[in-house]
Amino acid sequence: MGRNSTPGHVGFIPDGNRRWAMSKGLSKEQGYAYGIDPGLMLIEQCIESGIVEVSIYGFTQDNTKRSHAQKIAFTDACVAFASEISRRKVALLVVGDETSAQFPEGLEVYRTRQGSGMKVNLLVNYGWEWDLGGLKNGGLRSSEVSRMDLIVRWGGGRRLSGFLPVQSVYADFYVRDEYWPDFKPRHFDQALSWFKRQDRTFGG
Amino acid sequence: MGRNSTPGHVGFIPDGNRRWAMSKGLSKEQGYAYGIDPGLMLIEQCIESGIVEVSIYGFTQDNTKRSHAQKIAFTDACVAFASEISRRKVALLVVGDETSAQFPEGLEVYRTRQGSGMKVNLLVNYGWEWDLGGLKNGGLRSSEVSRMDLIVRWGGGRRLSGFLPVQSVYADFYVRDEYWPDFKPRHFDQALSWFKRQDRTFGG
Repeated sequence: MGRNSTPGHVGFIPDGNRRWAMSKGLSKEQGYAYGIDPGLMLIEQCIESGIVEVSIYGFTQDNTKRSHAQKIAFTDACVAFASEISRRKVALLVVGDETSAQFPEGLEVYRTRQGSGMKVNLLVNYGWEWDLGGLKNGGLRSSEVSRMDLIVRWGGGRRLSGFLPVQSVYADFYVRDEYWPDFKPRHFDQALSWFKRQDRTFGG
Repeated sequence: MGRNSTPGHVGFIPDGNRRWAMSKGLSKEQGYAYGIDPGLMLIEQCIESGIVEVSIYGFTQDNTKRSHAQKIAFTDACVAFASEISRRKVALLVVGDETSAQFPEGLEVYRTRQGSGMKVNLLVNYGWEWDLGGLKNGGLRSSEVSRMDLIVRWGGGRRLSGFLPVQSVYADFYVRDEYWPDFKPRHFDQALSWFKRQDRTFGG
């Protein structure tokens, strides 16, 4: 990946659903449902932009420590999102611990990539320790996910929060302060413009 | 680590030595020597600020692919820096692959922590793949390095460049556009002020 180019693989951390809900006078868990349509819009934009692969942070094993109402809400949002994108021209892979009760029924089939088109890796009940735990037996549990060139996070947090630590090692990190449900296509346009201006050296 | 507090463990990526040298009309490799005094200043500032542990990106296995002149220059700078800080009140550990010819003579003794005071982990001939390779045998090769709360990078790059991927998972990431040889103590003061304003959730 040279400079002045489009990233091949982009990671997305769609954070800020709960803060958005509170800012609208809703309860925290009501925020997640408002994250689905922005996700579909972003997927369409990625396909149009010629992106080859995207990875999306759905929810983590850490997240499942939250209240029951929140857990139900973000799980439902992930299942609805997976269902919607599986009908589009994408090759969907769900990456996460399917051996736990927190893994949603109905997504098991996507633990093997399904469909064709832009690769979409949706992290569901994902944990970085779970992922790295695979190395004891020869490979990452996320070994089908390639290295990322760019990571875009919404909600202002300047941290990875355990998002694919190995695939993140050389990724450029772009942060938007807007909450995820307030996603606009220009956010990603600006991320792509910013990426083209970065000098990518890979330590060489 | 709650919010409104001082980070326990801070990582530093002192990037921009070569760009600084070129901006001064020097050859690239001449930049590294100008990174030593800023490093000593920063170590003193960390001790005064009550930081418990710091990790510093010296050079990586990737970096050793650079020109011979550069390799000599950054190796010499790391050895000089280690020698200087070992005389201060710190507990110095060098983290990197000591089995390779790129590992500087004289630093082997620091593969076991030496001295007492603030912990300083200096990454020398470090590689993230080398580090994770230890998991096959039960633990990270950097297992003596704790999780970081804050990472500060100079030189404008918004990426980790393979810096301790496991210890970085929840770290807040603060970037300065100044080149490392232009370090000023206010850069770190501002990083600490910024850190106090971050909401640290650890995914919970």
